[in-house]
Amino acid sequence: MTSDIGIGLVGYGYWGPNLARVGAEAEGCRLAAVADFSAEARGRAEKRYPGIRTHADWRDLVKDPAVDAVVVATPVHTHFDIAFAALEHGKHVLVEKPMTRNRAEATILIEEAARRERVLMVDHTFVYTPAVRKIRELMDEGVLGDVFYYDSTRINLGLFQTDVNVIWDLAVHDLAILDHLMGGHPAAISATGARHVAGRPENTAHLTLYYPGGTIAHLNVNWLAPVKIRRTLIGGSRKMVVWDDLEPSEKIKVYDRGVTVAGSAEELRDIRVSYRSGDMWAPQLSSREALLTEMEHFAACIRDGSTPATDGRSGLHVVTMLESASRSLAERGRPVEFEQLRRAS
Amino acid sequence: MTSDIGIGLVGYGYWGPNLARVGAEAEGCRLAAVADFSAEARGRAEKRYPGIRTHADWRDLVKDPAVDAVVVATPVHTHFDIAFAALEHGKHVLVEKPMTRNRAEATILIEEAARRERVLMVDHTFVYTPAVRKIRELMDEGVLGDVFYYDSTRINLGLFQTDVNVIWDLAVHDLAILDHLMGGHPAAISATGARHVAGRPENTAHLTLYYPGGTIAHLNVNWLAPVKIRRTLIGGSRKMVVWDDLEPSEKIKVYDRGVTVAGSAEELRDIRVSYRSGDMWAPQLSSREALLTEMEHFAACIRDGSTPATDGRSGLHVVTMLESASRSLAERGRPVEFEQLRRAS
Amino acid sequence: MTSDIGIGLVGYGYWGPNLARVGAEAEGCRLAAVADFSAEARGRAEKRYPGIRTHADWRDLVKDPAVDAVVVATPVHTHFDIAFAALEHGKHVLVEKPMTRNRAEATILIEEAARRERVLMVDHTFVYTPAVRKIRELMDEGVLGDVFYYDSTRINLGLFQTDVNVIWDLAVHDLAILDHLMGGHPAAISATGARHVAGRPENTAHLTLYYPGGTIAHLNVNWLAPVKIRRTLIGGSRKMVVWDDLEPSEKIKVYDRGVTVAGSAEELRDIRVSYRSGDMWAPQLSSREALLTEMEHFAACIRDGSTPATDGRSGLHVVTMLESASRSLAERGRPVEFEQLRRAS
Amino acid sequence: MTSDIGIGLVGYGYWGPNLARVGAEAEGCRLAAVADFSAEARGRAEKRYPGIRTHADWRDLVKDPAVDAVVVATPVHTHFDIAFAALEHGKHVLVEKPMTRNRAEATILIEEAARRERVLMVDHTFVYTPAVRKIRELMDEGVLGDVFYYDSTRINLGLFQTDVNVIWDLAVHDLAILDHLMGGHPAAISATGARHVAGRPENTAHLTLYYPGGTIAHLNVNWLAPVKIRRTLIGGSRKMVVWDDLEPSEKIKVYDRGVTVAGSAEELRDIRVSYRSGDMWAPQLSSREALLTEMEHFAACIRDGSTPATDGRSGLHVVTMLESASRSLAERGRPVEFEQLRRAS
Repeated sequence: MTSDIGIGLVGYGYWGPNLARVGAEAEGCRLAAVADFSAEARGRAEKRYPGIRTHADWRDLVKDPAVDAVVVATPVHTHFDIAFAALEHGKHVLVEKPMTRNRAEATILIEEAARRERVLMVDHTFVYTPAVRKIRELMDEGVLGDVFYYDSTRINLGLFQTDVNVIWDLAVHDLAILDHLMGGHPAAISATGARHVAGRPENTAHLTLYYPGGTIAHLNVNWLAPVKIRRTLIGGSRKMVVWDDLEPSEKIKVYDRGVTVAGSAEELRDIRVSYRSGDMWAPQLSSREALLTEMEHFAACIRDGSTPATDGRSGLHVVTMLESASRSLAERGRPVEFEQLRRAS
Repeated sequence: MTSDIGIGLVGYGYWGPNLARVGAEAEGCRLAAVADFSAEARGRAEKRYPGIRTHADWRDLVKDPAVDAVVVATPVHTHFDIAFAALEHGKHVLVEKPMTRNRAEATILIEEAARRERVLMVDHTFVYTPAVRKIRELMDEGVLGDVFYYDSTRINLGLFQTDVNVIWDLAVHDLAILDHLMGGHPAAISATGARHVAGRPENTAHLTLYYPGGTIAHLNVNWLAPVKIRRTLIGGSRKMVVWDDLEPSEKIKVYDRGVTVAGSAEELRDIRVSYRSGDMWAPQLSSREALLTEMEHFAACIRDGSTPATDGRSGLHVVTMLESASRSLAERGRPVEFEQLRRAS
Repeated sequence: MTSDIGIGLVGYGYWGPNLARVGAEAEGCRLAAVADFSAEARGRAEKRYPGIRTHADWRDLVKDPAVDAVVVATPVHTHFDIAFAALEHGKHVLVEKPMTRNRAEATILIEEAARRERVLMVDHTFVYTPAVRKIRELMDEGVLGDVFYYDSTRINLGLFQTDVNVIWDLAVHDLAILDHLMGGHPAAISATGARHVAGRPENTAHLTLYYPGGTIAHLNVNWLAPVKIRRTLIGGSRKMVVWDDLEPSEKIKVYDRGVTVAGSAEELRDIRVSYRSGDMWAPQLSSREALLTEMEHFAACIRDGSTPATDGRSGLHVVTMLESASRSLAERGRPVEFEQLRRAS
Repeated sequence: MTSDIGIGLVGYGYWGPNLARVGAEAEGCRLAAVADFSAEARGRAEKRYPGIRTHADWRDLVKDPAVDAVVVATPVHTHFDIAFAALEHGKHVLVEKPMTRNRAEATILIEEAARRERVLMVDHTFVYTPAVRKIRELMDEGVLGDVFYYDSTRINLGLFQTDVNVIWDLAVHDLAILDHLMGGHPAAISATGARHVAGRPENTAHLTLYYPGGTIAHLNVNWLAPVKIRRTLIGGSRKMVVWDDLEPSEKIKVYDRGVTVAGSAEELRDIRVSYRSGDMWAPQLSSREALLTEMEHFAACIRDGSTPATDGRSGLHVVTMLESASRSLAERGRPVEFEQLRRAS
């Protein structure tokens, strides 16, 4: 028991209790401490986990010797200060997505973690779902062939945030998934959208990401939809996938459909496109909770000194894409090139 | 019988036979003649409609005294010549969508029809479906309130065209519907997309249309999808609509869902957004065929001298939007302002 | 052309025009004549098929030398007289389902066809659908293992018949499919149901069929349902099938789910049942029209002298099951044993 | 706090923890004690509810002065002994469904509760769901008109029980709902089914219930289905309902569909049946947890001395129907008349 990693959680609000639960349940971890400025939240945490320490100020938690690793589940604008202080005190860090408010903050955290040889991981939860792992496997094994497009619809009647728009709230999930699947930056991003409540941020948006290899990704996010949809289509040259995350079973369907191109590229008029329409196959997926898998991966990386699947660099990539999208959105879809952005920072 | 309008159809290929059928069946019409350069196509038409005249050259059909109105169902690049010649010979004209290749051609046809006092109508079929008519009715009666967005997904494993891209082939339907519902031009259009078969036009595209009143429309069109989807969400301040055109019944669902905003616009921080989540209602729709309704509307306009719901101006609007989208698509989503476009032409 | 089989159709009402069409289109057939007492119906047939002969009285059609094979698409109570007369005149016969009003009539037709060496076939259309053929193939190849149950729901808001109840109208489809799949009689049938319109036959019914090997089949048929459902579950010891006939694609889904039983039969308490929950697979099905496949099979049987997949014996089996179900229905589900029935007739 | 009703729960296995939770949360209740012979189960309960008493033997719990009301969540064969002892000690009783093994036990409990003036309630949870309450309301207000049928499908890949068959495990839900909606006994029951694992009880069954007023109810239950279905159709003379309990929203859909009958009953041939096909409407349902509503209803009945919606008589009715169905099942669907059954007991 004493060799278990002591988890210290900052923020016991909406998402925090889930992280506390897996921190307590995950193999190789124990929940050591919780910090929240709200006495009511601390009370709930103490009732649920009688043995733990609680702190009103996160500055006490990051110094707490019972804590080996700090999990940051607070609003985005506080991520940098808390994560940096935790690293300074030699703690490993798992931070909620999006990692930081901007590229500059993300870069400093990455450097600090490297300097202190600590694990810095970002909670891109979807990367640890059985569905995304299966899609990645289908891509790695070449089952899908070349990936032509990734097309996601993520809409529902959702809470209007006051500080972040629908891109930072919903599209961030797809950007994290894309970072994991595509393994690299898009060359350019175009984003459009609108706000329908005066004084509130954009509540509907559409992003297009252009990848160097020709893959195009498109995200449709909306807080003001009458129905909930979580559906992603991935079109490959060999197979195509429909991922419906609201399906209780059969979340992933693999279709043997597409086009077959014959003919010479020189004689464009002679190109012949024929259509394949074959079987559909829905692989059985594990029902393991993604967050538990993720927490055990965090613990394993701390023990082994290995790099998390969603490390600080992934976090930086996602923040970079969010910044690019925000710029394009403000200009009605004018594309923002990644190179531009990199030089700017 | 002799007072029935004599319909002359040019083009008996893919869509032509449907227009021939409704030309023969519609109240107040009779099918008088068919022109097609293919002898095989003429043979099929003669077998199906024993009494009609057939012409190998459309130039003969537009002169045919048995023909009062010419229906043009040929490839887009031929629309202008045929329609113009028909108007010159004093015929009324119903032309397939998109009306012409560009704004210039569309403008000339509109002027010619006005000068000769002939009916010029465009086959924007969806405008005559019971579903679109019901949506228009819900908007006109204020049931939806202010329209925040129109969000359409129109994808399937479709034929790759050689001459037009997926916008001219699929998005044209939504543009025609939007022209009917919104009654005016968008201020700007942004379009993104990609081609995945070398030497072929774009097979996937996303359009965003910005309307002056704040409505945003978004269209997702794709020829390379493993599943067929025809679904449009319309978000209003009072009610929201989901239109699923593949549902055998219950194509239109009206949701009593949305946000209610309270608070003063000056004190933005105090704005309170609350959520409504009430009943859903699926109105019974007529099962009448849209094309038949449309043909009878064409005949009525000819008889009464009234203006069609989808007249030449609607056709021009749709062509303008298609041109704007094509420009934006070529520049990765850079928005094209309508004013720019109008001055350019 | 002259060696094509001349098809003579009796009855050009609701279903007849479909049989006429495939009689005209099917390889090896030509539509020679149509009989219907209604002048209006004959008019429609002549307009559609200019060259054919028409008869007001079916007695003339069965004598017509241009006719090699008679297709009977009239109300059930007339099937026997027409089919018998056709056989007497040396014609082959394809008769609508249900074959006859009762076992006695069916038996006589079978004997007459055998005596005259003519093909007697029943239009059990579903047997020729790609879906049922695929299910049969999965059973024949042992993919499903032992068949535990067949459970079908066949309901919609349907026309109330005046002469036959919902069992003879809707359950007949499943009984024909079961006869094809199970290849033998059930040992007993229990049927329950009710009539909700005074003076009309039963509009809702449920049948249970007990097969000798332990398979149980259950059919739920209803003319008074607010939604249309056509769904059949087939549970096997190795795999299970869900057949949804209203799905535009993926009509058949094969699930790798079920129970695995371990333990000795003697020590019942120690039996261990574990659950399998694996992949799902939707095989691509042909889109060929069943009726066309069926008509070409009829023609092939006539040419080769082979026995149809749905011969007179299949027709008799189905009529036997219908009679049994009717008896049980009248006694609120009291089971009717097949042996009883056979001795009775 | 002291005036809250002290809940004593017997059985902390599969369903017990849910009853404990609502016993702790429900307005007017407090969780006072838990009994379970398993030390591990008691440990879980103590950890979750630090202040409560635990007993290894339920005989101690029913005597515990801190307990005002006993909730029985143990296997069916133990219900009678525990509930009777609790009543003897002056406690109120809420017992899991099915109430008892047979009619005799149920009758004794009812009499004992009446004699001691204690509340006896059965946990027919579905009766307290917003969906069933809405259906009852639609019936009470005459919206549905005369109820023609209730047709339920309740199937999934479920645990094979060793002691009870699929009727006692799954159909019991529908029988409880029917008792609530129909307010009286069916005149007769017919049940068919089969067992597919040697040494185990029936895993698939179909029940037909004949009600005096002409309503017919049919239940399809199955432990061995590849997909989960929870769907009930209720056909009325004025409206029809489809209740799909797995729909996250829109569980209840009300269809303005059906038949309209005109004509005299004497002249049966002249009866004219026409079809209505109008709007569909999905009323918004409360999202309140049924079990919480139920526990608060139990507390209110104890306080007010009022009769629960699901009292001992409801429990007896359901047990009577289960006994009838079991008899019929053993004889392949031979109908069991209620009068017979009543005289027998």
